[in-house]
Amino acid sequence: MAEKDISQAVIARLPRYFRFLGDLKEEGVERISSQELSKRMRITASQIRQDFNHFGGFGQQGYGYNVDYLYNEIAKILGLDKKHNLIIIGSGNLGQALANYVSFEKRGFLIKGMFDNNPALQGKAVRGMSIRSTNELESFIKENNIDIAVLTVPKNSATEIAKQLVKFGIRGIWNFAHVDLDVPKDVTVENVHLSDSLMKLSYQINCANNK
Amino acid sequence: MAEKDISQAVIARLPRYFRFLGDLKEEGVERISSQELSKRMRITASQIRQDFNHFGGFGQQGYGYNVDYLYNEIAKILGLDKKHNLIIIGSGNLGQALANYVSFEKRGFLIKGMFDNNPALQGKAVRGMSIRSTNELESFIKENNIDIAVLTVPKNSATEIAKQLVKFGIRGIWNFAHVDLDVPKDVTVENVHLSDSLMKLSYQINCANNK
Repeated sequence: MAEKDISQAVIARLPRYFRFLGDLKEEGVERISSQELSKRMRITASQIRQDFNHFGGFGQQGYGYNVDYLYNEIAKILGLDKKHNLIIIGSGNLGQALANYVSFEKRGFLIKGMFDNNPALQGKAVRGMSIRSTNELESFIKENNIDIAVLTVPKNSATEIAKQLVKFGIRGIWNFAHVDLDVPKDVTVENVHLSDSLMKLSYQINCANNK
Repeated sequence: MAEKDISQAVIARLPRYFRFLGDLKEEGVERISSQELSKRMRITASQIRQDFNHFGGFGQQGYGYNVDYLYNEIAKILGLDKKHNLIIIGSGNLGQALANYVSFEKRGFLIKGMFDNNPALQGKAVRGMSIRSTNELESFIKENNIDIAVLTVPKNSATEIAKQLVKFGIRGIWNFAHVDLDVPKDVTVENVHLSDSLMKLSYQINCANNK
């Protein structure tokens, strides 16, 4: 597979395909044409076929896609056929909220530990996990084969912690801190900048008001 | 301003410009050239000039941009010069985490009320707000001039609640439910699909492993 050449736009659509296929599976749908999928997802059938062609096509035109097969293939492309071990750094409200997302676990994202540099939080239990000191990060990451770190710390400490995480062997950072992180090329950062998202919403409302 | 014609990609970059300009202001920087801004933000200077030209340009080439002026102008474009009244529907962990984000308030996003259909949560105080029943939504929205609803409810109830919100006059929905909402054109939805984001991260790690 030539996955390296696939555009960010296609990649960004994959989880959405996966979600819709999961819904179809739940509804007991076994086959779906690109036309039907197009109607449901509100993207053109030709866009769907184009997207799927990046990965070999998946289906027979006319006969439609096998929902179960397509679901599993996209899961594999997304790396969901493997387990990932996660830690959460920053155990405030947001960190605790993410720790309690059961749906992550269903997809193979296992939260193994929670950390905070605030002594008042250390020792507190969240979903059966005792919040640890950030001093324990290095040993914990190595002993528990952690590949993903969820960063829910304030902007000011995120840069420094990210540097440490890279040194300790973390492969992916899910970054909720409101700052762009500077990491080596072999480390992946996926940003969730909540303020940016809220500002985009505000922009659209503002434009609608000015029309 | 021809804001209607501006691409999603440009809009998505505006909050990032705003963030970097805020950092520059904090550092006491008064003027910045597009070259310097380019270096900081890791996008080309020509991209920056192109983006800014959508809004009239903002600055004198050679002489650089006035940081304070640019910050305020982008704030206006993003609608941050106006106050927005928000409610949070779904007062579980994530809803409570968002209620506690002080930075939203600094940008003019005022959280006025919290709602949940779970009687066990109703009456509980979060940041001085007592969680209300979703039965009170209509009157609360109208009496408090609410324009944005934050939707942190499970997927299954999101569609129905979104329909009600539209009927009650909500202009924008910040949607954290893992489902695409179907709303009229004059209502804006900004999605934060956390699972999708985590899957994108997993995809990138998976690709890096396969190299």
